[in-house]
Amino acid sequence: MSNVPEFESPRALRLAIREGRWRGFTNAQAQQYVQGNLMILPASHADEFFEFCRANPQALPLLGRSQPGVPFIPSLGDDLDLRTDVGGYTVFRDGVAVGTPASIGDLWRDDLVAFVLGCSFSFETLLRNNGVRLRHLEEGNVSAMYVTSIPTAGRGAFGGPLVVSMRALSPADAIRATLVSSRHPMFHGAPVHIGLPGLIGIEDLTQSYGGHGLTRLHANELPVFWACGATAQLAAMHARLPFCMTHHKAHMVVTDVRIDDLIGLPGFTG
Amino acid sequence: MSNVPEFESPRALRLAIREGRWRGFTNAQAQQYVQGNLMILPASHADEFFEFCRANPQALPLLGRSQPGVPFIPSLGDDLDLRTDVGGYTVFRDGVAVGTPASIGDLWRDDLVAFVLGCSFSFETLLRNNGVRLRHLEEGNVSAMYVTSIPTAGRGAFGGPLVVSMRALSPADAIRATLVSSRHPMFHGAPVHIGLPGLIGIEDLTQSYGGHGLTRLHANELPVFWACGATAQLAAMHARLPFCMTHHKAHMVVTDVRIDDLIGLPGFTG
Repeated sequence: MSNVPEFESPRALRLAIREGRWRGFTNAQAQQYVQGNLMILPASHADEFFEFCRANPQALPLLGRSQPGVPFIPSLGDDLDLRTDVGGYTVFRDGVAVGTPASIGDLWRDDLVAFVLGCSFSFETLLRNNGVRLRHLEEGNVSAMYVTSIPTAGRGAFGGPLVVSMRALSPADAIRATLVSSRHPMFHGAPVHIGLPGLIGIEDLTQSYGGHGLTRLHANELPVFWACGATAQLAAMHARLPFCMTHHKAHMVVTDVRIDDLIGLPGFTG
Repeated sequence: MSNVPEFESPRALRLAIREGRWRGFTNAQAQQYVQGNLMILPASHADEFFEFCRANPQALPLLGRSQPGVPFIPSLGDDLDLRTDVGGYTVFRDGVAVGTPASIGDLWRDDLVAFVLGCSFSFETLLRNNGVRLRHLEEGNVSAMYVTSIPTAGRGAFGGPLVVSMRALSPADAIRATLVSSRHPMFHGAPVHIGLPGLIGIEDLTQSYGGHGLTRLHANELPVFWACGATAQLAAMHARLPFCMTHHKAHMVVTDVRIDDLIGLPGFTG
């Protein structure tokens, strides 16, 4: 998966995805703009999912929520179409992944509600601006994800384990990244763990969730773990929702919201 | 060395030391008050040492400086006598430790200047107030110190390696301690290293500087390292000063300044 910066404009990136001209992971694109996790589920479960997000704000900081049946969240981008503008989707039925289509226009329904949740890709720009070296970006890769033994705070049918993203950092950068990320609660805030992954149920770093991302540490690096929006996917599987759809792997929702405009803001409460 | 909290009042503690009734390490005493490292050297070297401290503020945050020949710094305690109120002193001649007297009244000279520098003991209270478990305190011990391979910024004759203090923390507490300590630049601020001591020249944690302190990690702990005021002692040895005196080991200057009154303040510049 190539991962070279090609797009500065989120609108241009979304158009390229919509027209089938581009299908990469989004972490190296439109780096001045907020990216998010996508969760689309029936309105009957929307309020319960909203409460689950509010109970787990470090993993699931809410950037936006659509009206039922409306595949747009205008505050995140006035031409953003959540059915076509994400580079890959995963479709779940009864808690099981059943497909990874490139668009979901044919699956959209009048009772669906879309949620967009903060993503650590957005703080990677801030980390780099503060001198943190992110080797996975230098190597054209993404951060790896892992399922932990840390439980989420359950709400209704939603629960299950916390998912984390991992970055391989020098110890000095681990300290710097802790300080910088802690100031950005909309992008998962401070790390949840450093250095001893076995303590949070990760026995083998090479076995990442989804099977992608930088997983091999150098001898001078520590693994640093942040709460991850993919926690929502596991919660939907845990809830055995009859139907839901999410972004696929590192194909995120790319918004028109500038990262600088969300710095330090507390979670969305609307 | 017993290390049970016995004194809440810094004045009562100093009196007990002055009268020879108490000789413990000070880290568990008068915990609401700022403690400091002591450096006493000839006035001929005082300005150069001052510049060295200003060039290395994370290790050597300046709390106070006496007038030449005056063994008092009234802003740190109106009855504080720097010749008698510290539980142990080390005397250096030509850069070599030549004695560890219990008081230095007979060694005081009219050309000596005393400096008091911030100490990590002062942030241990803040760490515990924020939920960080400090096992060395639970075990009646002090934090261990190590000489690193990290160079200080040299000024004049003063230079040499950075000395650090180490605390054994759970990963979650390492993150919490990083965030809390970063807000307290007068007590060394954020850690300088986490987790891989070999990278900063520490090959064996059991071999601490001075030979004291908690040095053995549990399997669920990371070693977290902060810049340490003992850096000044090594700098004085590096400078081969004809004469200087410091506090000995963990017998610190205990001041009347409340920790809460120094939170977030930048370094002393007077």
